[in-house]
Amino acid sequence: MELGKKQYQIDFSKILDQIRVFAPATVANMICGFDVLGFAVDHPGDEVAMYRVAEPGVRIRSIVGDEGRLPLDADKNTVSACVKMLLSHLGLQEELGVEIELTKHMPIGSGLGSSSASTVAGLFAINNLLGNPLSTAELMPFCVEGERLACGHGHADNVAPALMGGITLIRGYNPLDVIKLPVPDELYAGIVFPQVDVPTRDARQLIKEKVLLKDAVTQWGNIAGLIAGLYESDYDLISRSMHDVLIEPTRAILIPEFYEMKRIALAAGALSFGISGSGPSVVAIARGSDIAERAATEIQQHLTDCDIDSLKYVSAVNVGGPKVLG
Amino acid sequence: MELGKKQYQIDFSKILDQIRVFAPATVANMICGFDVLGFAVDHPGDEVAMYRVAEPGVRIRSIVGDEGRLPLDADKNTVSACVKMLLSHLGLQEELGVEIELTKHMPIGSGLGSSSASTVAGLFAINNLLGNPLSTAELMPFCVEGERLACGHGHADNVAPALMGGITLIRGYNPLDVIKLPVPDELYAGIVFPQVDVPTRDARQLIKEKVLLKDAVTQWGNIAGLIAGLYESDYDLISRSMHDVLIEPTRAILIPEFYEMKRIALAAGALSFGISGSGPSVVAIARGSDIAERAATEIQQHLTDCDIDSLKYVSAVNVGGPKVLG
Repeated sequence: MELGKKQYQIDFSKILDQIRVFAPATVANMICGFDVLGFAVDHPGDEVAMYRVAEPGVRIRSIVGDEGRLPLDADKNTVSACVKMLLSHLGLQEELGVEIELTKHMPIGSGLGSSSASTVAGLFAINNLLGNPLSTAELMPFCVEGERLACGHGHADNVAPALMGGITLIRGYNPLDVIKLPVPDELYAGIVFPQVDVPTRDARQLIKEKVLLKDAVTQWGNIAGLIAGLYESDYDLISRSMHDVLIEPTRAILIPEFYEMKRIALAAGALSFGISGSGPSVVAIARGSDIAERAATEIQQHLTDCDIDSLKYVSAVNVGGPKVLG
Repeated sequence: MELGKKQYQIDFSKILDQIRVFAPATVANMICGFDVLGFAVDHPGDEVAMYRVAEPGVRIRSIVGDEGRLPLDADKNTVSACVKMLLSHLGLQEELGVEIELTKHMPIGSGLGSSSASTVAGLFAINNLLGNPLSTAELMPFCVEGERLACGHGHADNVAPALMGGITLIRGYNPLDVIKLPVPDELYAGIVFPQVDVPTRDARQLIKEKVLLKDAVTQWGNIAGLIAGLYESDYDLISRSMHDVLIEPTRAILIPEFYEMKRIALAAGALSFGISGSGPSVVAIARGSDIAERAATEIQQHLTDCDIDSLKYVSAVNVGGPKVLG
């Protein structure tokens, strides 16, 4: 990953004392676009408060909402490690002192881009604290590096929508080529996180290295149809296109009640239903918040009937990306 | 293939005595969209003249430009067989007499959708002769059946752009779902047909049944990027997206001087270069006719230097589809 060789001028008088930012959860793959598509939601998401302090170095003050699962060691925590990486890139690692409070408003290991939201929040916060020396596009490679630290691979299908907002396409990785796609006004997501453990790594290992060309052709017909549907705000085309014939059949095995949840979502009027990222969260894509709400509520009720705890989030597709809270 | 059960009313007093139509050649796959994308060009193409005669039945009067390769038997010739199929569907096969003159203005077996152009010309002609009882969309299944008669498989990536014009996406086949995509104004094709024999059937058999998932992901990132590029008229994105990592490496083996032609096309400023359909025709996609012309001319010169005869066509991406000539 090329982090850029541009020289940045930092005006020390303009560095803020503190800042608080939010970065959104994301739904990678967007059902038919494995490893290349993703979208952000308005909520849930993660919050980072960042403080400039006298003593140089980057430290984690506190993490709330992680049930003790994330490291406080600044070299091991993704947020602080990314902030250190950026400061080092700017030549400020010996000069600047930064302390971080991370508040997780979303579950870890849920398939909603938890680490990406934290990474993006951290990098967006430090860039804002410093007076925005980097553009959003210039932050992207650092986000991808953060994802590599957190997950062991530098996929960008969560960090791209978390950083840029909306629906993003990773056209390619060499070099990283992120395209922002249009977001139809009435597009909503009804997300349900069944509280079962599906490690991303296992979900990825299940996937076969080779696929049938005819299935790949079906998949790229669908992804092409989805892109056209987004540009045309053609909800029927979006619905016809959002099918995953390649990855879902394998990953669905790890998700309890997957096909019953799918039946419920479609019966509730959702345009489509599938796995968010590598799961176990599932997502009903709907035209309008009412249908998204109904689909998610009925799915959650079914899980309750099956004695499976779950969390539910209903949100428009986010368009703004991360934001400064104060 | 479902040919539809709609009842059509034919007004016999409005059937024309004769008609002459043109249907365009097409570039299937559009480099990165194997089996799903295709576009039509303004020329070359095929011409069908159709005459209403007293004696019922469908007959071929003459075929010009085929070097004697196409059958004159009305049951074996694709054009007449399609016309018979449509007349039979309309319940007119016992009543109406039709004679056909087919003029091929393009080479057979060139990878430019030769059979599709003839099929579409024939069906467009009979539909016009009858006063257009079917819409363009309703003609599509008959065109696909015609392709099946001609090639042994019902692919639609040539007949769809030949019938509808412009750039088309076959999102899926069950049911057939054809999407018209926007055509950026300055998009041109410089086509060269090296006169070597590459039967479509062989070109298809070379392709492996299974592909690496990572290559498929690259391919659908590119096809998604191309669709976005077409909507945005973003020629740079179009150029970055038009790469085929899956099919080209195999099919290029059958095409003499392929990689040298590619080098020449890109050096001439083409946005992209690849195989048209299953080849051996190659296509340089360019912004503006000048670059398309330069690329095609320099490619043809190189083939001449290698003692390979070739034909050259430079055209805008067609937007109108087939047309009535008189």
